[in-house]
Amino acid sequence: MERIYADDASATPLYPEVTVAMQDAAALAWGTASALEYREGRAAAHLLERARQEVAALINARPEEVYFTSNGTEANNWAVKGLAATQPDKRHLVIPAIEHISVLNAVKRLTQFGTMRSTLVPVNAQGLVEPAAVEAALTGETALVSVQLANNELGTIQPVAELAARAKRQGLLIHADAVAAAGRIPVDVRQLGVDALSVAANQFGGPSGVGALYIREGVRIQPLFDGGTQEQGRRAGGENLVGIVGAGAAAARAGRDVVTERQRRRVLGDRLLNGLQERIDGAHATGPTLQARRAGPWGPASASEQGGAERLPGHVSLWVDGVEDSEALLRALDLAGIAASNGSACSSKAMKTSHVLKAVGLTEAQAEGAVIFSLGWATTEQDVDGLLERVPKVVAQLRQVLAK
Amino acid sequence: MERIYADDASATPLYPEVTVAMQDAAALAWGTASALEYREGRAAAHLLERARQEVAALINARPEEVYFTSNGTEANNWAVKGLAATQPDKRHLVIPAIEHISVLNAVKRLTQFGTMRSTLVPVNAQGLVEPAAVEAALTGETALVSVQLANNELGTIQPVAELAARAKRQGLLIHADAVAAAGRIPVDVRQLGVDALSVAANQFGGPSGVGALYIREGVRIQPLFDGGTQEQGRRAGGENLVGIVGAGAAAARAGRDVVTERQRRRVLGDRLLNGLQERIDGAHATGPTLQARRAGPWGPASASEQGGAERLPGHVSLWVDGVEDSEALLRALDLAGIAASNGSACSSKAMKTSHVLKAVGLTEAQAEGAVIFSLGWATTEQDVDGLLERVPKVVAQLRQVLAK
Repeated sequence: MERIYADDASATPLYPEVTVAMQDAAALAWGTASALEYREGRAAAHLLERARQEVAALINARPEEVYFTSNGTEANNWAVKGLAATQPDKRHLVIPAIEHISVLNAVKRLTQFGTMRSTLVPVNAQGLVEPAAVEAALTGETALVSVQLANNELGTIQPVAELAARAKRQGLLIHADAVAAAGRIPVDVRQLGVDALSVAANQFGGPSGVGALYIREGVRIQPLFDGGTQEQGRRAGGENLVGIVGAGAAAARAGRDVVTERQRRRVLGDRLLNGLQERIDGAHATGPTLQARRAGPWGPASASEQGGAERLPGHVSLWVDGVEDSEALLRALDLAGIAASNGSACSSKAMKTSHVLKAVGLTEAQAEGAVIFSLGWATTEQDVDGLLERVPKVVAQLRQVLAK
Repeated sequence: MERIYADDASATPLYPEVTVAMQDAAALAWGTASALEYREGRAAAHLLERARQEVAALINARPEEVYFTSNGTEANNWAVKGLAATQPDKRHLVIPAIEHISVLNAVKRLTQFGTMRSTLVPVNAQGLVEPAAVEAALTGETALVSVQLANNELGTIQPVAELAARAKRQGLLIHADAVAAAGRIPVDVRQLGVDALSVAANQFGGPSGVGALYIREGVRIQPLFDGGTQEQGRRAGGENLVGIVGAGAAAARAGRDVVTERQRRRVLGDRLLNGLQERIDGAHATGPTLQARRAGPWGPASASEQGGAERLPGHVSLWVDGVEDSEALLRALDLAGIAASNGSACSSKAMKTSHVLKAVGLTEAQAEGAVIFSLGWATTEQDVDGLLERVPKVVAQLRQVLAK
């Protein structure tokens, strides 16, 4: 039976040219990128800086504003902890209640001894945070607003540009976690107007273990790693050169394809969601159900005015009446040749029940049964056919077992 | 002209089987190692855990005591900051004055606001720290002792087992920075008796961008990255799977070869150092000059009794009368086909003059001219011949230029 990989949200398959670039780098690149006195070091530095340009181009940043990290979690931790540390007189953090666990737990770490406090802003049933609600949470004490550009469990795209404008009016720093977004929708740091923005290569066709943090020129941040002068002295330590080369190649391809791919995945995702709901009684989608269709660039603010949020293309998340055990469902799907997920790769084992699904109003039982099918560059029409054929059968079988 | 790579101390060339392992992984491994519900995730987890076993074996740790990081700098930062954070009532850190910049600057970070303080213990002219001097620095306030097993600039091997025994008698935590040591000399966490120990794959034939921290079972440490449950919840975020696979393959080879390679490199290094001193008037070695020769395992304590320290095999560091500009020397060497270094890759641009060389009594001018030739698994007899032929010529030419 043909395998169907439908967990793009956890990790995207590598683009073929990424594999080749990494293989070439593994054969050649062991020089030290900071050893500019000799040829092998300069060759390594050249690879590193070309990849930095490619990642910068993906988010419309300047290369010198892009700092490589070891994953999206590091970028998010660095943004939250590092930006807070430069403002020791401000002791308050504001985030939506459905942020990724790497932001949520970084905030928890900072507030663990009561010297800092946080406000978790509620979201609506589609996972959309209201800009006015965020603004209402801001105080003179607030150091930072951090918000996901797209939620990794619901697919909800947040009105980051509007949030950034409101934060800026009050002179506050704002960080966007664009890990789930970059490569799936166009991301433009200038248009968003944020001070920092996180991405991860394994979300746009690159390898796991490479992230990047955009830090707007002039914004101060305290390093997580102290030591040498790598990454302009802000992130010391030897670079993951092979992985970074892969990240660069992935960024180049993802940026080139994002507009056409967004449309293609949107169609595939809609077909999958509608098809599953037709074929499975009691299948309930989570996240935005209104698909805002507009010719221009994605625009959460206008989607919001229509009463609904936009979702990531190809992101299908749902729960099914009578199936309250996503672990069992995922294992049954695996036996049927399907890889799917019950939350982000990061959080699936960290919390029994998703804080995101509870925040959008699901009961514990509903949330415990929810699964995500996420489609990526490698997903074909045939894969969607296969999902529509196999998933309803697996659900029916599992319902029988669970009903006994 | 044949290139001669003599900067093993900054980054080792990849073993051929490491390149192959990484190339295979880049072709196959994009699954999410924490997605155990489906096949692709389990395959990734299998690769990850096999590599963990291989790295654990290199230092005689149990796999569950090994936590992958993104480099040695992260491992060192995590050890210093994370172990200090679990003892908020203890506000004092003790390190030798010649620690790597990633430890030194992590300590500086913790002491920046005066809420913690540190003692930098002096070393002798060979870079050896006296155990009694470290013990004398310990107070009831001391949270942690951190010491390099081998110094990356001088090659000096420190009496870590004895330091650990003294720290343990006082109930203190001790961390060893074994980044420069692991793969070059046998490293055994049980024999050393330390609570934590850092290594980096690009020091033992693996890729840049992978490190690991050994944390003895039962020792508490605060994470640098909060988020998901990767690495037993202590180091959240997606794993650098391709790099980690390479690190595992490198650890297996390095562990297998370390005893014979140590002897081979020791002979090559001695020949190089003696030959350069014969051929260059006013060439002065830094670090230990007595080569302790013993049949048994390396034992700094007994070397110390002989009045001299042992040095890393194949590590040659020196300064030359009249050549006070290592940058110029390295660039001239590069033109003569030689890659060498003037300090660790990490610190070369962070400080104008090496804190290590000043701590062992060199003047500013001497320290500014010092260079390191470090030999590794790929270094041949012919490479040493080439160095002995070319380096004296380059020095002579540069002396003429500088004398004008």
